[in-house]
Amino acid sequence: MRTINVGLIGFGTVGSGTAEVLLQQAARLERRTGFQLRLKSVADIYVDRLPDHFKDTRLVKDAKQIFTDPEIDIVVELIGGIEPARTFILEAIKHGKHVVTANKALISQYGMEIFQAAAAKNVEVGFEASVGGGIPVIKSLKEGLAANRILSIMGIMNGTANYILNKMTDEGVPFQEVLKEAQAKGFAEADPTYDVEGIDTAHKLVILMTMAYGMEIKLSDITIEGISNIDPIDIDFARDFGFRIKLLAISNNHGDHVEARVHPTMVPEHHMLANIGGAYNGIHFQGDMVGNVLLYGLGAGKMPTGSAVVADVVDISRNIVNNAVNRVPSLSYLPDQIKPGRITPMEDLRCPFYFRISALDKPGVLSTLAGILGNNGICIKSVIQKGRQKGGVVPVVIRTYEASESSVQKALAEIDSLDICPEKTVKIRILQDEQDSQA
Amino acid sequence: MRTINVGLIGFGTVGSGTAEVLLQQAARLERRTGFQLRLKSVADIYVDRLPDHFKDTRLVKDAKQIFTDPEIDIVVELIGGIEPARTFILEAIKHGKHVVTANKALISQYGMEIFQAAAAKNVEVGFEASVGGGIPVIKSLKEGLAANRILSIMGIMNGTANYILNKMTDEGVPFQEVLKEAQAKGFAEADPTYDVEGIDTAHKLVILMTMAYGMEIKLSDITIEGISNIDPIDIDFARDFGFRIKLLAISNNHGDHVEARVHPTMVPEHHMLANIGGAYNGIHFQGDMVGNVLLYGLGAGKMPTGSAVVADVVDISRNIVNNAVNRVPSLSYLPDQIKPGRITPMEDLRCPFYFRISALDKPGVLSTLAGILGNNGICIKSVIQKGRQKGGVVPVVIRTYEASESSVQKALAEIDSLDICPEKTVKIRILQDEQDSQA
Repeated sequence: MRTINVGLIGFGTVGSGTAEVLLQQAARLERRTGFQLRLKSVADIYVDRLPDHFKDTRLVKDAKQIFTDPEIDIVVELIGGIEPARTFILEAIKHGKHVVTANKALISQYGMEIFQAAAAKNVEVGFEASVGGGIPVIKSLKEGLAANRILSIMGIMNGTANYILNKMTDEGVPFQEVLKEAQAKGFAEADPTYDVEGIDTAHKLVILMTMAYGMEIKLSDITIEGISNIDPIDIDFARDFGFRIKLLAISNNHGDHVEARVHPTMVPEHHMLANIGGAYNGIHFQGDMVGNVLLYGLGAGKMPTGSAVVADVVDISRNIVNNAVNRVPSLSYLPDQIKPGRITPMEDLRCPFYFRISALDKPGVLSTLAGILGNNGICIKSVIQKGRQKGGVVPVVIRTYEASESSVQKALAEIDSLDICPEKTVKIRILQDEQDSQA
Repeated sequence: MRTINVGLIGFGTVGSGTAEVLLQQAARLERRTGFQLRLKSVADIYVDRLPDHFKDTRLVKDAKQIFTDPEIDIVVELIGGIEPARTFILEAIKHGKHVVTANKALISQYGMEIFQAAAAKNVEVGFEASVGGGIPVIKSLKEGLAANRILSIMGIMNGTANYILNKMTDEGVPFQEVLKEAQAKGFAEADPTYDVEGIDTAHKLVILMTMAYGMEIKLSDITIEGISNIDPIDIDFARDFGFRIKLLAISNNHGDHVEARVHPTMVPEHHMLANIGGAYNGIHFQGDMVGNVLLYGLGAGKMPTGSAVVADVVDISRNIVNNAVNRVPSLSYLPDQIKPGRITPMEDLRCPFYFRISALDKPGVLSTLAGILGNNGICIKSVIQKGRQKGGVVPVVIRTYEASESSVQKALAEIDSLDICPEKTVKIRILQDEQDSQA
């Protein structure tokens, strides 16, 4: 039986999970493939010994011992971050190794460099685990939906942010408190910036957009807003309107330009994405042929991510065994078919909005506010005024019909400069419901 | 540029959809694959001419002209049903053609014959479109989740039945009325037996179980109950308990035996499967590594099914071009690794139950019923008695904790033989919630 040798760099959470998956599923994978996957070596500078059940695997300190080993066919990089991961991957490619990685930060920012290097050496780079953890989202987009023009991508792609928002929604607890609890439980990192500020979600959106559209997308193309400013009061008002607040990655394809944004979004509570619980991810594609497809599962974690990494290892091994390397292009389109991306300017975006305006509780205030919105071409769908407080500041909550981002910016600048509005207005975008357009 | 020639048998709804997808997506597929897919010929005995935009496609009457054409690489069978589809596919294989089909009735009943014939000629048989319409469920199971032991399969796999149940639930209309309306609108066939009696769902479950477990599963292994006996009153009571009734295919993997059943099921209303609307399908896998994965999308229809058929055509074409035919085994496990299936006897099944007992409205009735259930080891979780009607017949609605199918059969036989119970008891299984086990 043919053996494919795998070398693993990084034995942290996902690395050790991947090693476990390879070991535990070895017999099953042989029954599926007819060849053997052998984890030959693991490199990790922080690990002194491997658990006893990894009898046939060698532990080394220096990643170089992995990527220079002539016996190794596939190098799995699971240390994360930009450096030294980037260098290790480029070195592995230079030595003619195929590469599998879960590194979304790296692929979204240095993907083109890596894929070009791989193409030059005719090796493959698998990155299924970089988006949606264990969910086979990359394979579905590249192969299952190959016969589609992708019209939109929409999804919950960060389990930590989703967990925090759900906890805030279900228990009415403020952001900082939930974050602290999540950190104590190990659900959030010590530095949660990437997760809660939408950066990790943006990394994933870059990867999906590139593959969906055959366009070169950069991280700087994505407009990013996180969830750290979400107030429980906005979650409550959202509920009154029949919405739940979710951190969504959204890209609508307008043909000659494409949207690229990550921000808190009010989602109708009957929508599938509104019901994605806890640490789960949900990724929604709309194809011109297939219509709506949603893929749901655990977006992170040791074994789920390991499952996706090993799926890539199997996929590449099948190509090695069959002499069919690069049978499917890494980015779904052939390298010379990937065009520069043109991003819809954020000012041109149109969607319904939620505003929470903090206004003095005086007669005529609503008329003033409505006037400003109307003069900017923004139509009000409904208004909630709660907790009247004579002479004090009260929230005036407004849900609009579809309006352009630029007119909203103009209107809110006017409103926030009024003496009767002592605090900055909170603005949250509402998911455009197909039945809900003003037209 | 290399050309792969496709011959299509059957130009009905899915056939013409597939032809459209091939034509409309031709340029995009070239950008992805580097080769050309050409729909060379279409065979259909009922069609006199193809629409004008199929300029390069020849219409023939006799399917033989497709499968004997030496130029044709892939034969796509989309006539449905057992014969002549089975003969056409076997003839195509005999002539060395690869085959793509959406025919779940055929694959679930004659799959082994077809796959063996294909293996002997070293050609491939693609059947992505046979389960879940446009959703890439077969590819996800075979490749994306390859590194998993599948612990359970659960899903809504028939859009017609789901549409009817949803309509009954949302509008309180009886089955026959909704069915008639669905037929008038073209959402249900003139003979709806396969869809509403669960047979179509069972076909799909056979296919998924075979691939998930590497077991030979037969249609007769599946216990099948349809939705034609569901009464709106049971939908109402389900709502009182926080459930929605769905037609589910369910298979739990117990290692040395596996469950295989299709029946109406009460699903907690917060569950993802409870929220699958209209003509959509939702297919849920639990893997030992990946945890829960749900795939959602349109389970039928011209273009969605066409999208899946063409995905298979692309997949096989890539293998032809790369000389990598049968790179992934058709049934996910290597042919010699597919073992006979052992099915859990239905009597051994354990789950919570819903009973609607029609009883005379007399003192002591509940005590009698509860006594019979208790004597059979069935514990009551809650009871609803609605619409008291002195001396008449009233529904006594009971929700049990987990109980075995055999004790339920025994208890209900006893109850239904009582003079105070003039009508047969209605029994609906409740989805086992993970938090809800009696243990």
